[in-house]
Amino acid sequence: MADKKKLSLIAFSGEFDKLTAVFTLATGAAAVGYEVNIFFTFWGLNAIKQKRGRAFIGGNFITKMFGFGMGGLRKAPTSRFNFCGIGPRIFRRLMRKNNVATLEELVEAATALGVNLYACEMAMHILGLKQSDFIHEVKDTLGVATFLEISEGGQTMFI
Amino acid sequence: MADKKKLSLIAFSGEFDKLTAVFTLATGAAAVGYEVNIFFTFWGLNAIKQKRGRAFIGGNFITKMFGFGMGGLRKAPTSRFNFCGIGPRIFRRLMRKNNVATLEELVEAATALGVNLYACEMAMHILGLKQSDFIHEVKDTLGVATFLEISEGGQTMFI
Amino acid sequence: MADKKKLSLIAFSGEFDKLTAVFTLATGAAAVGYEVNIFFTFWGLNAIKQKRGRAFIGGNFITKMFGFGMGGLRKAPTSRFNFCGIGPRIFRRLMRKNNVATLEELVEAATALGVNLYACEMAMHILGLKQSDFIHEVKDTLGVATFLEISEGGQTMFI
Repeated sequence: MADKKKLSLIAFSGEFDKLTAVFTLATGAAAVGYEVNIFFTFWGLNAIKQKRGRAFIGGNFITKMFGFGMGGLRKAPTSRFNFCGIGPRIFRRLMRKNNVATLEELVEAATALGVNLYACEMAMHILGLKQSDFIHEVKDTLGVATFLEISEGGQTMFI
Repeated sequence: MADKKKLSLIAFSGEFDKLTAVFTLATGAAAVGYEVNIFFTFWGLNAIKQKRGRAFIGGNFITKMFGFGMGGLRKAPTSRFNFCGIGPRIFRRLMRKNNVATLEELVEAATALGVNLYACEMAMHILGLKQSDFIHEVKDTLGVATFLEISEGGQTMFI
Repeated sequence: MADKKKLSLIAFSGEFDKLTAVFTLATGAAAVGYEVNIFFTFWGLNAIKQKRGRAFIGGNFITKMFGFGMGGLRKAPTSRFNFCGIGPRIFRRLMRKNNVATLEELVEAATALGVNLYACEMAMHILGLKQSDFIHEVKDTLGVATFLEISEGGQTMFI
């Protein structure tokens, strides 16, 4: 009863609009006192990688090939109407113009609000990534069982 | 204990098949006595816009550009195998042929069954839309915090 | 209180990476004692169809057309970077190389761990499919109301 309300999100998609949805939900919930956990997996790992270049740091040739086009938040495509990268730029401009936080600001706000960021162990294993490839705000590397335990009793969504 | 069971859906995607899933779940749940809330955001807003033309009413030039291809329910593409718009038409024909409700009928049924339709404040802000751009069945405009409060204690899905 | 923890997944997408996510979550949860239910619908039905050829068995001409490109697990595309079918092959190779279970192994593991597989009645109706078109591990054919009842009180996700 006295438990804090909880929201847990599995961030699977790497697209700009879906990542915006992840962080909008996360910050909105954290702002009203929720415990919020985000579990980044597959394409979603893109949102928490170090910004040292276009491709994933570390990993191997195949990982790099997969990393192609995954150049961090500034380059994440939208899931529809991408128009060779114009989509996200329009989105960003719309967000600026209407005074809405951009994705980078949402990531910052999320960590400032105490949102817990986790990376998926198995996806990292598949893609040959280490925790050091991610931004330092990433709290830990988790398997499915631990994530389910953490999210138990709250609302959980797959995005 | 005496609480009504609850299903809350975040309708993020604008594709024909995903919107069909949203309304199928919503009507199926409402028919067996659930409280059902749908929160339309981003591309999903397409499902509740006024049918006064192809593009979003209101908004600005950039919004209109985003509205390109978003021509209301009759024109929503499927998420796969769209074949220049043939996909949804086949779906619709399959639905007719096998006597399954079409999307328009599902929307109607949903409102008749008391499903609550909400529009996402932030996405409207980004896209420059007002509540008057939507069908009158839309009950209210909500932020994330209010949506989470409404959906608390039930099943919540992001579609 | 003494209730078993529960995880219910709606497998809507037919893409390789999303199906991998479905089965990874399912087996991870089942391995730590969860009751797990997967409800296959629309493109997700692809994961449980009989492997007697490339296209869906049964159904009609239009169904077959929809079945085009849906050739069972070995042919499921990834949701991004498909590169004419190379994407899944790379994924599979990455999975092999890093000693992670492949999708087929995950399906097997899931049934071995007692994960309940269900097919969506309405999608089968639309696509003209019968339960005999699916692998025998599929426990039953369900409507939305029954699925919601089964998943009540646990975590539910739409993938």
